[in-house]
Amino acid sequence: MKLSALAQLVGGELVGDGEIEIARVAGLDRAGAGDVSFVAGKKEYAAAKANNPQFAAISALIVGADFAADADGADFALIKAQNPAVAFVLASQQLAPPPLLPKITHPSAVIHEKTKFGKNIKIGANAVVERFVEIGDNTVVGAGAVIGENCRIGADCVIYPNATIYYGCVVGDGCIIHAGAVIGADGFGFQWDGKEHLKIPQTGNVVLGKKVEVGANSTIDRARFGSTTIGDDCKIDNLVHIAHNCQIGAHCVFAGLVGVSGSVQMGEGVICGGQSGFADHLKIGNGVRVLAKSGVMNDMPDGVLCGGEPALEARDGYRQYHNIRYAARHFKDLAKRVEKLENASADEKSAAEKPGEKL
Amino acid sequence: MKLSALAQLVGGELVGDGEIEIARVAGLDRAGAGDVSFVAGKKEYAAAKANNPQFAAISALIVGADFAADADGADFALIKAQNPAVAFVLASQQLAPPPLLPKITHPSAVIHEKTKFGKNIKIGANAVVERFVEIGDNTVVGAGAVIGENCRIGADCVIYPNATIYYGCVVGDGCIIHAGAVIGADGFGFQWDGKEHLKIPQTGNVVLGKKVEVGANSTIDRARFGSTTIGDDCKIDNLVHIAHNCQIGAHCVFAGLVGVSGSVQMGEGVICGGQSGFADHLKIGNGVRVLAKSGVMNDMPDGVLCGGEPALEARDGYRQYHNIRYAARHFKDLAKRVEKLENASADEKSAAEKPGEKL
Amino acid sequence: MKLSALAQLVGGELVGDGEIEIARVAGLDRAGAGDVSFVAGKKEYAAAKANNPQFAAISALIVGADFAADADGADFALIKAQNPAVAFVLASQQLAPPPLLPKITHPSAVIHEKTKFGKNIKIGANAVVERFVEIGDNTVVGAGAVIGENCRIGADCVIYPNATIYYGCVVGDGCIIHAGAVIGADGFGFQWDGKEHLKIPQTGNVVLGKKVEVGANSTIDRARFGSTTIGDDCKIDNLVHIAHNCQIGAHCVFAGLVGVSGSVQMGEGVICGGQSGFADHLKIGNGVRVLAKSGVMNDMPDGVLCGGEPALEARDGYRQYHNIRYAARHFKDLAKRVEKLENASADEKSAAEKPGEKL
Repeated sequence: MKLSALAQLVGGELVGDGEIEIARVAGLDRAGAGDVSFVAGKKEYAAAKANNPQFAAISALIVGADFAADADGADFALIKAQNPAVAFVLASQQLAPPPLLPKITHPSAVIHEKTKFGKNIKIGANAVVERFVEIGDNTVVGAGAVIGENCRIGADCVIYPNATIYYGCVVGDGCIIHAGAVIGADGFGFQWDGKEHLKIPQTGNVVLGKKVEVGANSTIDRARFGSTTIGDDCKIDNLVHIAHNCQIGAHCVFAGLVGVSGSVQMGEGVICGGQSGFADHLKIGNGVRVLAKSGVMNDMPDGVLCGGEPALEARDGYRQYHNIRYAARHFKDLAKRVEKLENASADEKSAAEKPGEKL
Repeated sequence: MKLSALAQLVGGELVGDGEIEIARVAGLDRAGAGDVSFVAGKKEYAAAKANNPQFAAISALIVGADFAADADGADFALIKAQNPAVAFVLASQQLAPPPLLPKITHPSAVIHEKTKFGKNIKIGANAVVERFVEIGDNTVVGAGAVIGENCRIGADCVIYPNATIYYGCVVGDGCIIHAGAVIGADGFGFQWDGKEHLKIPQTGNVVLGKKVEVGANSTIDRARFGSTTIGDDCKIDNLVHIAHNCQIGAHCVFAGLVGVSGSVQMGEGVICGGQSGFADHLKIGNGVRVLAKSGVMNDMPDGVLCGGEPALEARDGYRQYHNIRYAARHFKDLAKRVEKLENASADEKSAAEKPGEKL
Repeated sequence: MKLSALAQLVGGELVGDGEIEIARVAGLDRAGAGDVSFVAGKKEYAAAKANNPQFAAISALIVGADFAADADGADFALIKAQNPAVAFVLASQQLAPPPLLPKITHPSAVIHEKTKFGKNIKIGANAVVERFVEIGDNTVVGAGAVIGENCRIGADCVIYPNATIYYGCVVGDGCIIHAGAVIGADGFGFQWDGKEHLKIPQTGNVVLGKKVEVGANSTIDRARFGSTTIGDDCKIDNLVHIAHNCQIGAHCVFAGLVGVSGSVQMGEGVICGGQSGFADHLKIGNGVRVLAKSGVMNDMPDGVLCGGEPALEARDGYRQYHNIRYAARHFKDLAKRVEKLENASADEKSAAEKPGEKL
C-alpha cells in the first residue's frame, strides 16, 4: 500500500514521499524496512533509536502534529495525525494480517435443517448449530462452537472455537466471541425451602448489542425473566462473569476476572479494572471508573473514579488510605509524647503535694 | 393451569376465583393477564403498581399470610403462603418453560460401544462418551460435551455443551453441569527437586453428590489420592475453582470467581461470597458465611459470619475496621491537642525556671 | 515392583527386605499392604498410626535420613532418602496409574490433510487439527480439542478435551494443557476514537516453553506484535489469565484465579498466590513470591516476598499492617489519656488564674 493512500485512509497529513510502499505495521522497537510505526512519546522514540538496529530503515512513522519540533525524525516519511494512536490503529486494521478463520463450512459441522442463514457464512469443523438459529451475512463460527436453539446471531460476527451460546440468546452485528466463552447459562438463583435449595427457573436470555467483544472463557448468564443486556461496543476481557439480569450500557470495558453480581445496572462507558467485583442490584453511573481489585458495594454516581473495598470515590478513598497510613506510622511516637506529658504532670503534682520538700 | 390447582401444588391458601387460568409466572414489574406473580414487599408492590401498565390485569398474586392487612391487593386473586418466596419458586418450576435440551441422541455423537446407559438418555451432536461410562435414566448431555472413561453419571442430570468430565469421576443424580465446566482436571501438585517441578500424579477423582449445580466454566480438580467430594445440593456459580482433595459438605453455595485451595474441609451450608478465597487445608464449620472478596486464612468455627483479608469473624472484623477508620479520622486532631499540651507545659516550665522575670 | 528396584530408582538407601513387592503409592492415612508411603513428619506418623487400621500392614515407607532415631518405625522396610518428598514423587510417577488418554486416533477427529505429524500421535473423538499444524511424537489430543492453523505442538504433550489453541501458537515439548484452556485468544487491546473502541489487531502469538502445564479454563492471550512467552517448566493452575505480550521466565508458578495484565515481564521462579493480580508493564524479579490476593502495582526486585494491596515487600507490609492494627486498638485509650491531661492542665490554669480563691 502506498504511503499516500495510507495517510488518506487514516486521516493524516503526509510529510515526505507518498510513493513509499508500506507492507506492515510494527512496534517502534522492532519495525524496519516496509513498516509503518507509531511514536507514542520522546522516551519511546529515543529507546527505539538506541536499541532497534533496523530503526533507520523504518519506512514511515505516524506521529502527532507537533512531532518535527520535538525530535530528530526529519529523515522519516511521516503521517501527521491529530490523534496518532487512533491513526496507527486504523493503519493496523488495514495492514495487519487478519485472523485465520474457517474458510469453508466444514462437512463435519452439524447444522440443523431449520436454520436461516445469510450469505457467506462459514461454520467450522464439528461446530453445532441447533434448530431455528438465524445467522447474518459473513459470520464465521469456529470449530466445536455450539449455538443453541432459537439463537439470533448478527452479521459480521466471529465466534471462536468451543464457545457456547445457549438457546434463545441474541448476538448483535459485528460481535466477537472468544473461545470457551459461555453466553446464556442459567442465572445463579436458588430459594432455600428449609431443607434444600429449590432451583429458580431462569427463563430469560442474553442480548448482546453490536460490536461487543467477549473474552475467552468469560460467562454472561441468562436472566430470570427478560434479558441480561450488554450494550453496543462493550469490551469484555477473559474470565469475566456477568450475572443474570444485569443491564450494561454501551461502551463499557471489563478487564480480566471481573465479577458483576445479579441485576446490576451500569450506565455507558463504565471501566472496570481487573478482578474488581460488584454487589448485586447496584446502579453504576455513566463513565464510572473502578480501580482494579475494588469491591463495589454501593451505587456510584456518574463520572466518579472509585477504588478499594468497599469502594469509595477515589478522593475519599485516597484520603482515608493516606490517613490510615499516617496514623499507623506516627501513633507510637504520639503515645510516647503523651507518656512524657503524663510523667511531667505527675512530677509536678507530686511536687505540689509536697511543697515543703521541694523547697 | 387453574389457580386452584396451582394453590394446592404450592401449598398455599386460595383467596378468590380458583377457576382463573394461569399461563405463566412473571416478575411484578412486568406481569399481566394470565400471569401469577409474587409480592416480595410493600415497596415492590407500590413500585409495580405505579410503573407496570398491565398491573391491574395480573391474574393472581402469591403473597404472605398477612398480605391483605398491609396493602390494597384485595382485587387480585391470591395464593396466601406461609413462605411466599418458596411458593413462587414452586409455581415457577411448574409453569416456566423448561430449558431447550437435545431431543434425540444425535448420530454425530461418539458413544463408545462399552457404555451402560439407562432409559431415555439423549446425547447431543458431536458429544463424546468414552469407554465404560455409566449414565442413569433421563440424563441429557449437550453438544460437544466430553465424558471420560469410567465416569458414572446419575439419573436426571443435565450436562450442558462443551463441558468436560475427566475419566473416573462420579456425578450424582439430578446434577446440572453448565457449559465449559471442567470436572476432574489434575490437582495442582508439584514437587521442586532443585532443578524443576516434578509432577505429582493425581490419581484420585471427583465425586459430586446429588442435585449439585456447577456453573459455566467452573473447575473442580481430581484428588491426589481418593476423591475431591462435593456434597448434595451444593450450588456453584460460574468461574469457581475448587482444588484437589477438598471435602465440601452438603448445601454449600459458592458465588462467582471463588477460589478454594487444596484439601479444604467445609461443613454443611457454608455460603461463600463472590471472589472470596480460601487457603489450603482449612477447616470451615457448618453454616459459616464468608463475605465477598474475603481471604480466609484460618479455620472458622460453626456459624460465624466472617470477612476481610485475612478474614475475621465479622464482629471482630467490623470492630477492627471501625477502629481503624476512627483512628485515621481523628489522629491528626489528637496530635494537635498533644502539641498544645506540650507547648503549655513548655511555657510553664520556662516560667518556673525564671521565676524572677515572671514576677 | 521390588522395593530394591524402587529404592534405586528414587535414589534412596534400602533398609530392610528388598524383595518386598510394591504395587502402589498411597498417603500415610490410607496406605496398607502393597503400598509404599511417605512420612512427612512425626505428627503425621503418629496420626496415621492411631487412625489408619491398615497402618501396620504398610509394605514400605520413604523417610528422611534421620527417621529411625525419631520414631518407632523400625518394623517397616524403609527407603531412606536425602529428600524424601522428592523420592516419594518419583515413586509416584513410577507406580501411579497413568491418566486415561485416547488410545487411538478416532475416525471422527477432523485432521487437515496438510499437517506434519510425528510418530505415535493420538487424536481424540471430534477433535479438530487445522491446516499446517505440526505435532511431535507421542503427543495426545483429547476429544473436542481444537488446534488452529499453523500451530506447532511439541512431542510428549497432552492436550485435554475441549482445549482451544488459536492459530499460529507454539507449544513446547512435554506440555500439559488442561480441558477448556484457551491459548492465543486476542489480547485485550482497544483504542477509543471518541465514539467507539477501535479493535487493535493482535497479530502475534503465544509461545509456551517445555514442560509448561496450563490448568483447566486458564487463558493466555496472543501478543499484539511478537509473542506472549511462557518459560520452561511454568505451572499454571485453573482459571488463570495471562494477558498479551507478557514475558514469563522459567519455573514460575501461578495459583488459581491469578490475573496478569499486559506486557508484564517476570523473571524465573516467581510464585503467585491465588487470586493475586498484576498491573500492566511491571517488571517482577527472579524468585519473587506474591501472597494470595495481593494487588501488585509496582516493580519488584529479585527475591522479595510481597503482599497486600498495593503489594509491599512483606517486611514493610507486615510492619505497616501491624502498625495499623496497633493504632486502631490503642487509639481511644490514648485519646482518653490526652483528655485527662487536658483537664489537669485546665484545672491548673484555672487555679493559676484565680490564686486567691484557691488559697
